[in-house]
Amino acid sequence: MAEPLRVGLAGLGTVGSAVASMLARSQAALAERAGRGIELVAYAAKDPPKDDTLDLSKIRKVADPVALARDPGIDVFVELMGGEGDPAKSAVAAALGLGRSVVTANKALLARHGLMLAKLAEEHDAALNFEAAVAGGIPIVKTLREGLGGSRIARVYGILNGTCNYILTRMHKEHLSFAECLKEAQRLGYAEANPTFDIGGFDTAHKLAILTSLAFGTQVDAEAVHVEGIESISLADLEAADELGYRVKLLGVAQRTEVGIEQRVHPTMVRQGTVIAEVDGVTNAVAVDADTMELTLMGPGAGGAATASAVVADLMDLARGRRVPAFGRPAAALTKPQRAPMQRHEGGYYIRLAVVDRPGTAATIARRMADEKISLESIMQHGRDRRPHGGDDPRVDKPALVVLITYATTEDAVRRALAAIEQDGVWVEKPQVIRIEKS
Amino acid sequence: MAEPLRVGLAGLGTVGSAVASMLARSQAALAERAGRGIELVAYAAKDPPKDDTLDLSKIRKVADPVALARDPGIDVFVELMGGEGDPAKSAVAAALGLGRSVVTANKALLARHGLMLAKLAEEHDAALNFEAAVAGGIPIVKTLREGLGGSRIARVYGILNGTCNYILTRMHKEHLSFAECLKEAQRLGYAEANPTFDIGGFDTAHKLAILTSLAFGTQVDAEAVHVEGIESISLADLEAADELGYRVKLLGVAQRTEVGIEQRVHPTMVRQGTVIAEVDGVTNAVAVDADTMELTLMGPGAGGAATASAVVADLMDLARGRRVPAFGRPAAALTKPQRAPMQRHEGGYYIRLAVVDRPGTAATIARRMADEKISLESIMQHGRDRRPHGGDDPRVDKPALVVLITYATTEDAVRRALAAIEQDGVWVEKPQVIRIEKS
Repeated sequence: MAEPLRVGLAGLGTVGSAVASMLARSQAALAERAGRGIELVAYAAKDPPKDDTLDLSKIRKVADPVALARDPGIDVFVELMGGEGDPAKSAVAAALGLGRSVVTANKALLARHGLMLAKLAEEHDAALNFEAAVAGGIPIVKTLREGLGGSRIARVYGILNGTCNYILTRMHKEHLSFAECLKEAQRLGYAEANPTFDIGGFDTAHKLAILTSLAFGTQVDAEAVHVEGIESISLADLEAADELGYRVKLLGVAQRTEVGIEQRVHPTMVRQGTVIAEVDGVTNAVAVDADTMELTLMGPGAGGAATASAVVADLMDLARGRRVPAFGRPAAALTKPQRAPMQRHEGGYYIRLAVVDRPGTAATIARRMADEKISLESIMQHGRDRRPHGGDDPRVDKPALVVLITYATTEDAVRRALAAIEQDGVWVEKPQVIRIEKS
Repeated sequence: MAEPLRVGLAGLGTVGSAVASMLARSQAALAERAGRGIELVAYAAKDPPKDDTLDLSKIRKVADPVALARDPGIDVFVELMGGEGDPAKSAVAAALGLGRSVVTANKALLARHGLMLAKLAEEHDAALNFEAAVAGGIPIVKTLREGLGGSRIARVYGILNGTCNYILTRMHKEHLSFAECLKEAQRLGYAEANPTFDIGGFDTAHKLAILTSLAFGTQVDAEAVHVEGIESISLADLEAADELGYRVKLLGVAQRTEVGIEQRVHPTMVRQGTVIAEVDGVTNAVAVDADTMELTLMGPGAGGAATASAVVADLMDLARGRRVPAFGRPAAALTKPQRAPMQRHEGGYYIRLAVVDRPGTAATIARRMADEKISLESIMQHGRDRRPHGGDDPRVDKPALVVLITYATTEDAVRRALAAIEQDGVWVEKPQVIRIEKS
């Protein structure tokens, strides 16, 4: 059997600890499957391992991650520290610069510096593997990079953040407010103390930027992603969605359009009964629409064991001597795509308006929509005392609720119609707008 | 760029034609992604191509598949003829014996001769790739072979035959009989003129045998699969399932148990709302329960384009010089597992009995179940005129319907209880028994 693959691991948080323990536990199975051993020989970590049962007594500790990346005693550098800046960035660059392959779960780093790192890897004949960076244990990177080479992809989309999906699921199932569910998610460790990165959609945007590059052969461009979070979603929206046959999910969507590649992260309405609509809790799902097929992959988007499994799969590929360009094509072949502006987005819309409850309001709204050639699939009006849950405390000045579902139209038209409705003075607060996504 | 990978293709049916056309159409993209061209240079086919727009004028025709497999002008032999015997078997063996890699979609061949072929491939340092053999376009072979190396798999299961799922879906949604739906499936080309191979569960069994080997590192053993088809499923079962919160699906299931590896194909009851339960029509789905995660993949299980995409992905791997043992481990490491006998199967059961409609019948049945220590989750009795759909034509001698759902028990206990009930003379026809599967 060939010499073992010597692994240097930076970061011993949840995922790093799980990787170390999986390599120790599955030693024989991995050696059998990969044709050679995969051995953790050195590590760097600023904190003690998250998993305190981990025995690192026989593993060499290196002072800092950059030194570890440069260590001549390792064949692969595994970066599980996270963060788009240093030390992750300089450590990964150092390893690749020496022709040393890298496995990382760092979506922020790849979303920001993916192209630079892919080029560096190529120049120095090293591999850059990152299955664990997107959707945890789901093998979506491998599927896009290796599985769909003969297909032309039209759209890739999915639920890429377990925290958001957990919150939206809880709100819907238990009729709780966003704030209550967020607090519960934090208590359970599903959300960070500072949750903005997750609930604001930024984590999803990083993952989407990586998927876009893999799916369309483009240069990763996190700046091009339109991002909206779930903070504005209210129980009223989830309940209206339920009534109308939809579910609300935070999706990342990348698609080819006539005006370029559209990359967007925002709450969406998806039809009940579709797989994406029924993915609950912290589970992730990614769907690919290609000319050859529609494919959906579902599984845990986070968690030590699942994410470690993806890291170890990347290591197995390296041990087997397998190397694929980081984004599936040579870095020089990755194109800089036309960015489809959000105003040109086409699709259906859910619009919830809190309006003054007087005759003619619905007619005014419908007319403004018609002025912009927006066809309505449905219009639902709840008076003061007919609002779903929470509406049984009628007060004289309480607004009525009007919910519209439009047929496919453009973002531009919707914005213009809403501006006109604002001029009409019929609404009492800024309307809620949620795009409808086919799934 | 390196020399192109020269492909010899045997079989120009639906999938073969789609592969030839994909290689022609995606030439540039494939070359970019694989780092070298993938060129169809020769073919063998006894019939003209299924796709008559295919231009084969510049491709060399070889008289027969075995000659093609031996042709020194090709690097890879692609076998898309099907059939477990010759010429597929001898052609694949001939190619491997010369150290020439093979890509095939032939599940019957692999289910019967997988171990022999894997050994042959290894001895001659050739690859044997077969992503397209299981679940069409779904990358489940790659996922099991490369993605889950650090995981211990407890169960792999799924909907692996689109014909059966199409028939069961139509029966359920449109309240049609099995015979009517089968006829419709044949008219649409979803079922063969002789449908036994699909509806009898044999196609699913072949695919399951392959998945079992990949998941558990065992020698493929199609003989060890317990097989029941969907011919016995009646509308009454689907309607009872609906009422009880289940769907009926033909599943292939392989799982580790205390007494060995259980491989079985049979109609199952799965809980409504689970992904597997909601997979409709010709779509396939495969789920993997591992210690690290639960993963579900869904997509088209057949069709030219989707299956061709899997074949081309295998070719891309070869073009990139990537090689993995056929079943994920060296052939010599594949174990011969203990076969878990079906009588030892544990799980819940749905039992539908047509019984003589007289007082005490339900009590007799319940007592026989209790004698075998079988706990009932529910017992539902419909008298002559209370039967669901189709039951509104009561006749004096019409039997009553008793439907039982048991908690987890063993196959043995159920068989003994039913034998006792038969002795009691309360049933008027052989009862329907459908195993309940957690999904």
